[in-house]
Amino acid sequence: MIYFDNAATTPLHPEVKAAMTAAMEIFGNPTSVHSFGREARVFIEDQRSLVAGLLHVSPAEIFFTSGGTESLQTVLHGALRDPDIRRVITTPMEHHAVMHNLKHLSPVFQKPVHHVATGKGGVVDLSHLEELLKEPGRSLVVLMHANNETGILLPLTEVAALCTRYGSLFLTDTVQTMGKLNLDLSTGISFAAASAHKFHGPKGAGFLFVNGDCRIEPLILGGGQERNMRSGTENIIGIAGVAKALEVALRDLPETMPHIQSLRDSMLKGITERFPDAVPVTVPDQSLYTILNVGFPAHIAGAMLLYRLDIEGVAVSGGSACTSGVNIKSHVLDAMGIDQDARQHIRFSFSRFNQPDEVSKCLEILASIPRN
Amino acid sequence: MIYFDNAATTPLHPEVKAAMTAAMEIFGNPTSVHSFGREARVFIEDQRSLVAGLLHVSPAEIFFTSGGTESLQTVLHGALRDPDIRRVITTPMEHHAVMHNLKHLSPVFQKPVHHVATGKGGVVDLSHLEELLKEPGRSLVVLMHANNETGILLPLTEVAALCTRYGSLFLTDTVQTMGKLNLDLSTGISFAAASAHKFHGPKGAGFLFVNGDCRIEPLILGGGQERNMRSGTENIIGIAGVAKALEVALRDLPETMPHIQSLRDSMLKGITERFPDAVPVTVPDQSLYTILNVGFPAHIAGAMLLYRLDIEGVAVSGGSACTSGVNIKSHVLDAMGIDQDARQHIRFSFSRFNQPDEVSKCLEILASIPRN
Repeated sequence: MIYFDNAATTPLHPEVKAAMTAAMEIFGNPTSVHSFGREARVFIEDQRSLVAGLLHVSPAEIFFTSGGTESLQTVLHGALRDPDIRRVITTPMEHHAVMHNLKHLSPVFQKPVHHVATGKGGVVDLSHLEELLKEPGRSLVVLMHANNETGILLPLTEVAALCTRYGSLFLTDTVQTMGKLNLDLSTGISFAAASAHKFHGPKGAGFLFVNGDCRIEPLILGGGQERNMRSGTENIIGIAGVAKALEVALRDLPETMPHIQSLRDSMLKGITERFPDAVPVTVPDQSLYTILNVGFPAHIAGAMLLYRLDIEGVAVSGGSACTSGVNIKSHVLDAMGIDQDARQHIRFSFSRFNQPDEVSKCLEILASIPRN
Repeated sequence: MIYFDNAATTPLHPEVKAAMTAAMEIFGNPTSVHSFGREARVFIEDQRSLVAGLLHVSPAEIFFTSGGTESLQTVLHGALRDPDIRRVITTPMEHHAVMHNLKHLSPVFQKPVHHVATGKGGVVDLSHLEELLKEPGRSLVVLMHANNETGILLPLTEVAALCTRYGSLFLTDTVQTMGKLNLDLSTGISFAAASAHKFHGPKGAGFLFVNGDCRIEPLILGGGQERNMRSGTENIIGIAGVAKALEVALRDLPETMPHIQSLRDSMLKGITERFPDAVPVTVPDQSLYTILNVGFPAHIAGAMLLYRLDIEGVAVSGGSACTSGVNIKSHVLDAMGIDQDARQHIRFSFSRFNQPDEVSKCLEILASIPRN
């Protein structure tokens, strides 16, 4: 079995398993004032400091959540109900966790949504962004750091600087890049969302970065956990997994990054050689090194390509990856003006645990699929 | 060390640890269409069927969440924005996860909150509830099954029948009773919220029961997980823990219930014998068998009683248990008209893992604390 769907989710790293297993013994409620509670509280604060240190921010700026979707919705909900925010600036290529929540919240709080133009490969047009930011009143800019389908990267520091210049807030979805790039969140970003399961941590656990200068109201109230930003008894085992996964990912980056990038590059080279009529959507030098999205001509199994690969033991994604259990058309490729009937798009996404022989094997399997 | 704070949280059951450890190997994203994804999807649906079967409801009525607080907020948010709901009927003795969210949502959605009267021990006055339900228009009734501070029980079936008779919705917070009583949720209850860590499962994982006849909008949108009721990649390891914990708890109930009840009863007997001026808040025959709340006279260590017990190695709760890390006055005892300056209230809460010798030891320690 070959697993090339690491942008959807990743297996746990052995060190993460060990950290989570150890955390199963810490059972006090962190809000309890007795020794069991204090042990749990200290443990969580240690994990928070670890995560904050790795991202060059203060522990008070890191809030543990149930993952990327909740983190994004917390900011969208909190910012849109803020009377100071006049509009949202985003693209139609964001994750559904942004798009669906915005579609619901925009009419409720009467905040219009403006789309910033994108160029080749889905790259955000910074001069159009600046034009939009010049409109009077404060905006919330919502742009993902790397697109989950194509890998196209946003110039994070430039966008943060633009938003700062025009007094606007900037939420970035770092779900794909967290643990895959060395991020410094102290560079003018207002909010960032992350999910541990994308970097060999557990599902259902992640965090939200909230710049200390920004204030939003919480989405979930109650016992006042996470300094009143996110109520609910803390997922200690999950938090242990989040912190360990990020620590391991960033520690090993000098080895894993070139390893993964060479897998992606040889897959792209192999596909180009074997399928001269395949069209890569991913622009390698402007994209995250873990993702390769390619449009295969319809005569190669057509809409059945994904299923043929699955039958042959290769797990990849097609269509709108993180959604629905049914293979619907991709809103990202749609927004890029790509004809999805003419080609079947496959997203290959790689992790540190993939090996070169899996790339060769996958290329062989691709080549062996009968043409229509 | 003696842990008598099981209403705050409980240690993992060894079978739950084993189930969660096994689930660490299931790493596919349940929304992926390939074999890794299908394995994860089937696993989650098996856990859902297990939970649903134990509670006599349909799997389509169980939604996995990050715990009790999120479950409660999902219903409160969804129901209050429903134009069909005219008001909320509740008590001032609910958990902060209900009270703080209601306080915020009530003005936003312009839905008034009415308090139903309570009698001795905090028991809900059903005739007053019926009077309130007779008001024209649909109500959302929010009442906890067992109070987390006093253990007082709500007659669930009678309240559900009243709500059904008057066409109102009924949300019950079953965080304390889930896994401690055999619950049949198919008896007219609209919504129920549960947290696994209260019954020897993991923190940060729980579920929401939504009666198939009731419809609410989700709190968190995105990838459409949990049949669009709760987006975000599923916490597979946590869900494994939720289901196993509930299975083990209900399987062992015939042994654990009398065991825990006898611990509670001997603690009450011992306190009454040794401290004739102590006043139990808990009414044993109307309360959950796991909780004992007692007001100790001020001359026994005064406000320091909780800390004295902690120093002596006994973990219990005082004040408003599940909140804040600081020991503030209890809103529950306040609502019951209990003078919290005159007495220091301690909540002892027991689990299957406690033993009779811990009760004797705790009573000895209590008796040894110097009087002022």
